[in-house]
Amino acid sequence: MNDGAGAPCAAIPGDVARAIIAAGQRMDARGWVPASAGNFSARLGPGRVAITRSGFHKGFLSPESLMVVDEQGRPEESGARPSAETGLHCGIYRRFPEAGAALHGHSVPCTVLSRLSGPNLTLAGYELLKAFPGLATHEAAITLPVVENDQDIDRMQAGLDALWADQPSPLPGYMIRGHGIYVWGRDMPQAMLRLEALEFMLQCELEQRRLR
Amino acid sequence: MNDGAGAPCAAIPGDVARAIIAAGQRMDARGWVPASAGNFSARLGPGRVAITRSGFHKGFLSPESLMVVDEQGRPEESGARPSAETGLHCGIYRRFPEAGAALHGHSVPCTVLSRLSGPNLTLAGYELLKAFPGLATHEAAITLPVVENDQDIDRMQAGLDALWADQPSPLPGYMIRGHGIYVWGRDMPQAMLRLEALEFMLQCELEQRRLR
Amino acid sequence: MNDGAGAPCAAIPGDVARAIIAAGQRMDARGWVPASAGNFSARLGPGRVAITRSGFHKGFLSPESLMVVDEQGRPEESGARPSAETGLHCGIYRRFPEAGAALHGHSVPCTVLSRLSGPNLTLAGYELLKAFPGLATHEAAITLPVVENDQDIDRMQAGLDALWADQPSPLPGYMIRGHGIYVWGRDMPQAMLRLEALEFMLQCELEQRRLR
Amino acid sequence: MNDGAGAPCAAIPGDVARAIIAAGQRMDARGWVPASAGNFSARLGPGRVAITRSGFHKGFLSPESLMVVDEQGRPEESGARPSAETGLHCGIYRRFPEAGAALHGHSVPCTVLSRLSGPNLTLAGYELLKAFPGLATHEAAITLPVVENDQDIDRMQAGLDALWADQPSPLPGYMIRGHGIYVWGRDMPQAMLRLEALEFMLQCELEQRRLR
Repeated sequence: MNDGAGAPCAAIPGDVARAIIAAGQRMDARGWVPASAGNFSARLGPGRVAITRSGFHKGFLSPESLMVVDEQGRPEESGARPSAETGLHCGIYRRFPEAGAALHGHSVPCTVLSRLSGPNLTLAGYELLKAFPGLATHEAAITLPVVENDQDIDRMQAGLDALWADQPSPLPGYMIRGHGIYVWGRDMPQAMLRLEALEFMLQCELEQRRLR
Repeated sequence: MNDGAGAPCAAIPGDVARAIIAAGQRMDARGWVPASAGNFSARLGPGRVAITRSGFHKGFLSPESLMVVDEQGRPEESGARPSAETGLHCGIYRRFPEAGAALHGHSVPCTVLSRLSGPNLTLAGYELLKAFPGLATHEAAITLPVVENDQDIDRMQAGLDALWADQPSPLPGYMIRGHGIYVWGRDMPQAMLRLEALEFMLQCELEQRRLR
Repeated sequence: MNDGAGAPCAAIPGDVARAIIAAGQRMDARGWVPASAGNFSARLGPGRVAITRSGFHKGFLSPESLMVVDEQGRPEESGARPSAETGLHCGIYRRFPEAGAALHGHSVPCTVLSRLSGPNLTLAGYELLKAFPGLATHEAAITLPVVENDQDIDRMQAGLDALWADQPSPLPGYMIRGHGIYVWGRDMPQAMLRLEALEFMLQCELEQRRLR
Repeated sequence: MNDGAGAPCAAIPGDVARAIIAAGQRMDARGWVPASAGNFSARLGPGRVAITRSGFHKGFLSPESLMVVDEQGRPEESGARPSAETGLHCGIYRRFPEAGAALHGHSVPCTVLSRLSGPNLTLAGYELLKAFPGLATHEAAITLPVVENDQDIDRMQAGLDALWADQPSPLPGYMIRGHGIYVWGRDMPQAMLRLEALEFMLQCELEQRRLR
């Protein structure tokens, strides 16, 4: 299921690789990276991004499962194929200079709620909303965009760019209908913290909807 | 709960045995092999299949829990009893030359949905549909056959053979009502990937049905 | 939360102690022994039973958490207090000579279903019914008694004795309303296998009821 | 996400630190400390409390993630910031001299039920009620206060003090709407035992409500 090239990627610092690998293990333990779903990235420096390669099971990554692309998603080395969704990761890094890491996973609550939702999903009244920038209180609400799934990644990213252009401070996350969630932060710990907070609130939302 | 013969099976290469054992541990961690349910196999070469023996807990396999049968399900060595469902594994290898490994597990979503379903269960609109052959887009759908449970395995397999005879490219999987799921692939990683994708989508389906 | 006496119990063979300790760890991983709930036992020989002591968390047992009682539940050594429910374990060993191990746990499906159920709960149409004696087919059904909870253990056991007296081959298990499940087998692996099968079917039942 | 000061806290005995760290790992395994939610404390002696520092992920604590405050919540050493909810922990130790440890977590059942509940949530008919003081039988009930969330911790604590002033023997726990649960005991094992018992019963309550 992988694209063949097996050499470790020496261009990715060990601590960055370990952070990405550990993120995959933690998400796998939660059931958030079924099959070969999910992909993760980290900004290495100006114009360079470490990203998971296409086809690998994200719960069992190794340094060989990673590669480096530029901010347009072009591989630094030939022979390895980056995640099919590389364009979405790079779209985050181009638009948000403060973003240092991004995580994409599939959870059951996210998949189910996004299939039933309109263009947005609002989360309100949760203490965990404090995980998001500018929200120091639980009395606020966040509105997660839910975009249509699309196999044309460039087209999907263009839609996100248009969405973000209208907002002074876009939320560092969005859902793709029937597909999953994207979340980012200044580094991998903050990205994972925001992902956990969102997934927790989505699970609460799903539970509440069952009770109606 | 096992059939007594304890000698390790030297006829199964170590890497194949380890892949089967690891598959069992992963499925056990997900709760997909309760009691002594479930069984796994891998094609060893022309006319030879490695399969789990009858009665062992599939979360705790060892090389002694495995044995070799031919494509008709007959043991190579006397004294060990293969899985009661060996005929279903061999039916897959006879019909699908490209199949290299097969997994059978019991999950709660599979058991519940199959009890409520007709002769088929359709999954549509999920990104994870891409795990299946010929489906490069989320806009397709797959239709999983749901066959009646039957203690006469030969009779059940004959029904599956008739079902597959009508289809140019049968889906590499089916459900048995109140019993579980069978999935296969060219090797154990692909079989496991397809199993995870199906189980994820079944869990989403179950969650959505609760919301109606 | 324990009763003070700390010496290891030399009267329990190491393999028996390890089997009990491992059963507790497995049940804890499934969430079946919350707080200090649950208790486990194994028959050591004529008139002697190894049982978990009162007050210990069953996910973290050690040889010091076990003790020996006779078939009336009386401790062999003074100073340690056996499980409050010792009478229920001994009631199993007195009535069923073939019983070699017994497990008691609390799961959410068991607790919820028993609170809503009448004096019995029937499970039908599941392949996993084959885990029970005399049931070689999925087309049978089992009927689990659901007895009222009672802090007077002797009284509860007397009720169970009366229930079993009417049956030629009682099912090796029962539920206690709002409390949990008791399951037994010829040894610890068979007891655990039956517990896993029952808990799986109870979880399926609970899921199905949510869909009505 | 942490406040910078990294020196280990020599003022906290190793066994206390290990107990707090282990509590966090266990709660993380259950999904009860998403993002940087949750906080834990233990009484060190007269007027001294060990508490988790602000901003750390509670599943991955180390001695550096802990600090010492007095019963008013003032740090013994400058440079480290205690949990934002330190006032709630200290409020427990001031009011309840027998309290030796306190745990705060966020679970999905707690969050969902508290959002739907009035000023109290009653749990009745569960065997696990025996985990609470003065309740030696399953036939009692406990009533958990559900207080409004409030970013002004001192104000929230004043409300709890008023609530407890009216009660001869307040229950050792309460919920904060949309936020989580606080539980305490004479030591960390008893606090954890009560937390597990409450979380189990809350999960049963949530399941039952889905069935209506």
